[in-house]
Amino acid sequence: MGGAGLIGTVSAGAASGAPAAASDAGRVPFHGAHQAGILTPQQRFGGFAAFDVLARDRTELAALFRKLTVRSRVLTAGVTPKDPDVAAVRGPADRLTITVGVGASLFDGRFGLEGARPPGLTRMPRFPGDRLEPGCCHGDLSVQVCAQHPDAVLHVVRDLARETSGLLRARWRADGFVNPPRPEGSPRSFTGFKDGTAHPDTTSAREMDRLVWVGPEGPDWARGGSYQVLRTIRLGAEAWDRVPLGEQERIFGRRKSTGAPLDGKKESDPLDYGRDPQGRVTPLDSHIRRANPRTPGSEDSVLLRRSYNVDRGLAPDGTLDVGLVFCCYQRDVDRQFATVQKRLEGERFADFSTTTGGGYFLVLPGVADASDWYGSALLGS
Amino acid sequence: MGGAGLIGTVSAGAASGAPAAASDAGRVPFHGAHQAGILTPQQRFGGFAAFDVLARDRTELAALFRKLTVRSRVLTAGVTPKDPDVAAVRGPADRLTITVGVGASLFDGRFGLEGARPPGLTRMPRFPGDRLEPGCCHGDLSVQVCAQHPDAVLHVVRDLARETSGLLRARWRADGFVNPPRPEGSPRSFTGFKDGTAHPDTTSAREMDRLVWVGPEGPDWARGGSYQVLRTIRLGAEAWDRVPLGEQERIFGRRKSTGAPLDGKKESDPLDYGRDPQGRVTPLDSHIRRANPRTPGSEDSVLLRRSYNVDRGLAPDGTLDVGLVFCCYQRDVDRQFATVQKRLEGERFADFSTTTGGGYFLVLPGVADASDWYGSALLGS
Repeated sequence: MGGAGLIGTVSAGAASGAPAAASDAGRVPFHGAHQAGILTPQQRFGGFAAFDVLARDRTELAALFRKLTVRSRVLTAGVTPKDPDVAAVRGPADRLTITVGVGASLFDGRFGLEGARPPGLTRMPRFPGDRLEPGCCHGDLSVQVCAQHPDAVLHVVRDLARETSGLLRARWRADGFVNPPRPEGSPRSFTGFKDGTAHPDTTSAREMDRLVWVGPEGPDWARGGSYQVLRTIRLGAEAWDRVPLGEQERIFGRRKSTGAPLDGKKESDPLDYGRDPQGRVTPLDSHIRRANPRTPGSEDSVLLRRSYNVDRGLAPDGTLDVGLVFCCYQRDVDRQFATVQKRLEGERFADFSTTTGGGYFLVLPGVADASDWYGSALLGS
Repeated sequence: MGGAGLIGTVSAGAASGAPAAASDAGRVPFHGAHQAGILTPQQRFGGFAAFDVLARDRTELAALFRKLTVRSRVLTAGVTPKDPDVAAVRGPADRLTITVGVGASLFDGRFGLEGARPPGLTRMPRFPGDRLEPGCCHGDLSVQVCAQHPDAVLHVVRDLARETSGLLRARWRADGFVNPPRPEGSPRSFTGFKDGTAHPDTTSAREMDRLVWVGPEGPDWARGGSYQVLRTIRLGAEAWDRVPLGEQERIFGRRKSTGAPLDGKKESDPLDYGRDPQGRVTPLDSHIRRANPRTPGSEDSVLLRRSYNVDRGLAPDGTLDVGLVFCCYQRDVDRQFATVQKRLEGERFADFSTTTGGGYFLVLPGVADASDWYGSALLGS
């Protein structure tokens, strides 16, 4: 089993104390050094889709990226008169973001990109406990779509599918939502627990350079991008719901009602494992303690999480098919996600969660201006 | 193919001109002559689950209905201190409703109810074009859960599953949402079209008696209940998205941008097929004209619709698995749903929609007070 937190549904915005806005206002700029949808305060609804590229050569691949750029620019800008399809989604009002990444498989022999793959971009391995379904993993391309309403997310997926017909084939897809805070503070995942009081400060450019953006380690074409890890994690909801409250709290390491540490009162109360080396208060195999042991050096593995809860109805065996698309961004997968994932091996919560899909992607640097396009530094001549 | 409208996502509330409120206020009363969730203005999120009953005899069946009543009363009332599971959902703030119905199969030999089945409660037949998947049809019991947030819907399903463990087994389940109005007026379905300017007046008790509630035709135990038809309809989104706008509008019989009739300007402009007997303006095989021909007598078949859009990601063949759980309430399935469904046979939109599941249920009369329970008039001694 295992899985880096079926809990990480807290927005980057929440990190700085401001929960994701419910309002319809606030267009997210499309152009910039980085793509939107990473530091953007998390919208209420989000979807992830991974695609196989059907383009036959590098020219068609560049055409595909140009098309994706044009459509993303139009859709996030919002209403175009006389185009009712686009009018159906009001990009700005929905705080729509579209975030495009590439997988390691894009750098195989098809497009002459063998030499361009950064060493940090690999195929997601199978971690202990994973039950990966081949059709739900990996992909040449990933697209994250986030908005304040679920119809906007689907609308974008459909638009991109239509506009790239013949050049892309959908491989897997998972849509979800962020739960509203109940009653306040961090949102809860389907475990019923709050999580995520330890987020990086997205307002600090220095922290973001350290933790999120690809830097001079390069390659040059990737600088300003970010490594995206997606993990679709299923929750064993029926089994979890039968675990008594006190036991659930020991498995997580927090109070369910308030989100407070087991020796605290409030969600924001500090954790101090130094006073509890044996795990008498917060068990050593609790989720919170494994995920972030607060030991020297563990601040290097901090992730920027941007996950969404997923409810797919029933599995074929009649059990609830619910869980999380865990999504995180980082500068270095080995140093960050993979390190956290390794620490989580053996956590008790692993008995209730199973990773069934996902992938590693490198989100491309931002589209600088109206003449630029996704991947221009990679594919432009 | 076929399917009574992949479009019926408009709330009962919208019928009287008031779109479903986005606010968090407004507890929906649990007790009453009728169950909540039928005339209740449609909440933004909703789910349908059908169950097989595992109770071994009539006594266990009554115990099951009593348990369902107790949990529904508690959950819709909201926060119970010291119960963080319940605290996670604020029933009143979510405008939570839970609506329980029974299927024809409950009246087989298991519980001594053979003589109690109303003639109007039958097993949903296969209509022309249906591709019913056996695991996604029928059921002894149906539960509709509606709320302003998606997590509240799932929370209730999980609570009921846990509390009725051993007495119920989930058979199929579909959750969905109502799209926000774009830009105003009736919400759009995944077809991109608005629909539903012809709804019954839910504020008229007389109309509701005529169209929704089981009356003296009985049986007595069912009086005040309502027949619920559920149809899970898949939209062929990729094919639909390739149909040119003008053609889509002829298939529907309305303008996509405004929802206006093809010879009108506004969504609310009246339809007058009398001036267009040949279907030169609004084609005879358009959805709107088939669904409601506005001929003498067709007002008898008007339905109270309460459908939700569904997005399940990708189908195994890689196409989008999106559509609608069509839900309607009526006093008489033959006179209402089945009549409309028959009229829709041969509509052009059938090429783009396929019904894959659903069922016929009879929603029980309301729970009168704190001592009453679902089905007391059916199962009480």
